[in-house]
Amino acid sequence: MQDITLFTEGTIDAATFAAGLARDHVADNVEVLNRLEPEQAADVLMRLPFDRAVGILDKPELDFGAEIIAALPRERAVPLLTGMADDRAADIFRWLEEPARGELMARLDPAARAAISSLLTYPPNTAGAAMTTEFVSVPSTWTVAQTLAHIRSVERTRETVYAIYVLDGATRRLVNAVTLRRLISGVPEANILSVAHADAPVKTSPSTDREDVARLISKYDLLAVPVVDSVGHLLGIVTVDDIIDAMIEETTEDVQKFGGMAAIDDPYMQIGLLEMLRKRGGWLAVLFLSEMLTASAMQYFEVELEKAIVLTLFIPLIMSSGGNSGSQATSLLIRSLALREVKLSDWWRVAARELPTGLLLGAILGVIGITRITLWQKLGFYDYGEHWMLVAATVAAALIGVVTFGSLAGSMLPFALQRVGFDPASASAPFVATLVDVTGLVIYFSVALMILRGTLL
Amino acid sequence: MQDITLFTEGTIDAATFAAGLARDHVADNVEVLNRLEPEQAADVLMRLPFDRAVGILDKPELDFGAEIIAALPRERAVPLLTGMADDRAADIFRWLEEPARGELMARLDPAARAAISSLLTYPPNTAGAAMTTEFVSVPSTWTVAQTLAHIRSVERTRETVYAIYVLDGATRRLVNAVTLRRLISGVPEANILSVAHADAPVKTSPSTDREDVARLISKYDLLAVPVVDSVGHLLGIVTVDDIIDAMIEETTEDVQKFGGMAAIDDPYMQIGLLEMLRKRGGWLAVLFLSEMLTASAMQYFEVELEKAIVLTLFIPLIMSSGGNSGSQATSLLIRSLALREVKLSDWWRVAARELPTGLLLGAILGVIGITRITLWQKLGFYDYGEHWMLVAATVAAALIGVVTFGSLAGSMLPFALQRVGFDPASASAPFVATLVDVTGLVIYFSVALMILRGTLL
Repeated sequence: MQDITLFTEGTIDAATFAAGLARDHVADNVEVLNRLEPEQAADVLMRLPFDRAVGILDKPELDFGAEIIAALPRERAVPLLTGMADDRAADIFRWLEEPARGELMARLDPAARAAISSLLTYPPNTAGAAMTTEFVSVPSTWTVAQTLAHIRSVERTRETVYAIYVLDGATRRLVNAVTLRRLISGVPEANILSVAHADAPVKTSPSTDREDVARLISKYDLLAVPVVDSVGHLLGIVTVDDIIDAMIEETTEDVQKFGGMAAIDDPYMQIGLLEMLRKRGGWLAVLFLSEMLTASAMQYFEVELEKAIVLTLFIPLIMSSGGNSGSQATSLLIRSLALREVKLSDWWRVAARELPTGLLLGAILGVIGITRITLWQKLGFYDYGEHWMLVAATVAAALIGVVTFGSLAGSMLPFALQRVGFDPASASAPFVATLVDVTGLVIYFSVALMILRGTLL
Repeated sequence: MQDITLFTEGTIDAATFAAGLARDHVADNVEVLNRLEPEQAADVLMRLPFDRAVGILDKPELDFGAEIIAALPRERAVPLLTGMADDRAADIFRWLEEPARGELMARLDPAARAAISSLLTYPPNTAGAAMTTEFVSVPSTWTVAQTLAHIRSVERTRETVYAIYVLDGATRRLVNAVTLRRLISGVPEANILSVAHADAPVKTSPSTDREDVARLISKYDLLAVPVVDSVGHLLGIVTVDDIIDAMIEETTEDVQKFGGMAAIDDPYMQIGLLEMLRKRGGWLAVLFLSEMLTASAMQYFEVELEKAIVLTLFIPLIMSSGGNSGSQATSLLIRSLALREVKLSDWWRVAARELPTGLLLGAILGVIGITRITLWQKLGFYDYGEHWMLVAATVAAALIGVVTFGSLAGSMLPFALQRVGFDPASASAPFVATLVDVTGLVIYFSVALMILRGTLL
C-alpha cells in the first residue's frame, strides 16, 4: 500500500500519490483515503482515473464521501455522482450540507435526480434505504438465450450478478428470480421461466427493517432479496454485502447503546470532543438524575442509618449485585428478542424462568456474604458488633431479594421497551443498574427493619 | 406452515406431518423441527424424502442436529451424514457424544471420514472450521467451454456457484478465481484464465479468525473467500452465508459477555436452569467477591462515616456515575478495537482523549449535583446541616474525580485485555463498574477529608 506520510508531509504531490494508488485494490485505496483530510482526499481523487474514482466513492467503507464530494469542483462532482450506484449516491446526499446539496442535485440529469430523490424518501435502516436500484431484470417472454446475450452485452460492466429478476411482460410485476447457475444450464430456446425456481421468490417491502432483511438472507441463504412495492413492482434489491456492512454497523450501535450512550457512527479517533460530550453526557445526566432517588431513599432511612452504621458498609455490595444480575438478564433478553427466539407474548414465561434463577443466584451470593462476615468476625479482621449474626442474616436475605428483583426487572425491561414501540436494545446496563439501585436500597432497609427491629434498630 | 400442535398432541402421525412439511420451504421446516423434541424430529425426518432430510440437516439454523442424528437408526444416519456438506457434518460430529460419535464415524466411507476428520482439527471460530470443502475448481489448462460444460453436468445439483477456482494443472495450487458472470462472457475456445480477474485472488489461511474473514468479505465485496494452506493448495471456501450466520452468533456472544455473563449458544427458552446458574452464577460470584473490597474500603473510613453520616447519602449516586461513565467508555473502545479503528499502540492517544472528556462529563454532573443539594436545602426538603455548601462542594469534586477515573479505566480495560491475549469484548459493564466502585469510594472519602477537615470531619 501507499506510504501516506510521504503525501501528508508534502514530500510527494497529489498526482504522484494518485499514480501509486491506482496500482492497489480499490478497497485498499479507501483505507488510505480515510486517513487523509477530506480536502486532501478530494485532491487525490481528482487525479485518479474516472472509473477508479467512481469505484472508491461506491464503497460504503469510505468515511467522508459527502465531505469529499463537497470539496470537489461541481463540474467534477456531478459526473462522479452520476457514475456511482444510485443507492451510494443517495447515501452521500443524506450527509451533504447546503449549499452543496442543492447545487449538486440541480445539476444532475433528470433520471438520476428522480432515482436518488426517491431513495432519499426511505427512512434509514430500512430495506428501501439499503437497496440498490441496479439489478438485472428481463421480461417473462424472453428465452434463456436472449437473457444470456443481454447479460453478456448490456450488463457487461457489472462485476456480480446476484440473480436475474423475471418481470411480467405487461404489468412489470416480479414473477420469479433465476440464478446465473440455473441460467447456464437451461436450454437456449426455452422460456426464461423454465429455469426459474419452483417456489415463489422470497421478497420484502421497502419499509422492512434492515435487521429483518438480514434474517431473510440468512434463513434462505440468498445473495440478494428483491424489494417490491405493494402491488409487486420491483424497486431494487438488497444484496448480501450491503447487509454485512449494515450488520457490522448495527452491532456497534447495539454495544454502544448497551453501554449506556447514544450510538456514534464515526470511528473513535474522529469523534469531536463536543459530539462525544453530547452522545455521552446526555445519557449520563439522565441516569444521574434518576439515581438521585437513591439519595432520597437514604434520607428516608436516615434514622436507621444513624442507629446502625454497620449497615452502610454493605450498601455498595448489595446494590451492585442487583445491578449485575439485572445487566445479565437484560443482555440475554435483548438478543433473544432480536433473534426472535422469544416473542413479546412470552414475557410471563421468561418471568417464570427468571424468578427461580434469581432466587438461586441470590442464595449463592447470600452464602458467600454470610461466610465473609463470619470469617472477618471470627478471625478478628473487623467487629460487626454483638448482633453480627443478625447483620449477616440481613445481608443474605437482602441479597436474595435484590438479585431476584434485578433478574426480573432486567429481563422485563426489554419487553417493556418493545411493548411501547422502542428498540429493546435501548435497554442499557447502566439503565438497568439505576432501575435496580433505588429498589435495592428499599429492599435492604426493609429487610433490616424486619430482622434487626428490637436489637440494632 | 405446518400446525405443530396437531403432531405434538398426537392428533396426526409423523407420516402425515412429514407429508405436510414437504410442501413448505426447507428453511421453514427447520423452524418447525426446532420446536420439537429431538426424538420427535428424528421420527419426522425418517419419513421425509432423502434429499429434503439432507437439506434440513445442512441448515446451520437447525438447533439439535447432533441429537437428531443420534436418535436416528445408524443405517439411516450414515447416508444422511454422507449426503450432507462436509462442513455441516463436521459441525454435527463436534456436538455428537459417544458412543454415537465413534459408531457413526466408523461406518462412514473412508473419503467422507477423512474429509470430516480433517475439518474437526480446526479450532472453532476459525476459517478452517467455518469453511465448506464443496467448491468448484478446474485446472488452469481448461477452456471457458470446458468449464461451462463441467458446471452444467457435474455441478448440476449445486444451487449457488460462488466462484470457480482455477488450480495449477501440475501443482494444484490456487492460481485465480473466476466469477460466473465473467465466465459466461468469455470466448468459448479461450483459456479459462482469459476471464479471470487481473489481480491475484484475495485468500486466507485456515487458522484465520472468523471475524477477520468477515472483514475481508465485507472489504472486498466477495461472495466467498478461498482458504489455502501454507503452500497455496485450496482447502475450502468460506461463503458469505456462513459468515452472516457467524456474525449473528458473534454479536449475541459479545452482548452477553458485555452484560457480564458467560456466552450461551442456545435459545433462551432451551437453556436449562443448571446451565443458566453456571453461566451467570460464576461471573456474579467473581464480581461479588471483588465488590467486597467496597466493604473493606468503607470499614477503613468508618470514623469519617460516623462523624458525617450525611456523606453516606451520596455514596450510591457517586459510585454509579463512575460505573456508568466507565461502561460508556468500554463499549466505545470494545467496538473500536474490534473494527480495527484503533490499534493496541494507540492506547495513549485514547487516554489523552478520555481525560478531558471525563473531566468535562464529571463537571456537568457536578453542577447538577450542586444544584440539587442547594435546591433541597433552600426549599426545605432536607437539611444537610450548617456546612451544606461544603458538602455540595465535596460531592461535585468527587464526581469530577470519579467520572474521570471511570472514563479512563473503562477505556483502558479493553486495551489491557487485548494486551494480555484476551478478547477485548470480555470487558463487561459489571466488570468495569466493580473496578470503578472501590476506587470511587476511596476518591470520595479522600476528597471529603480534604474539603471537610476541621468542619464535619
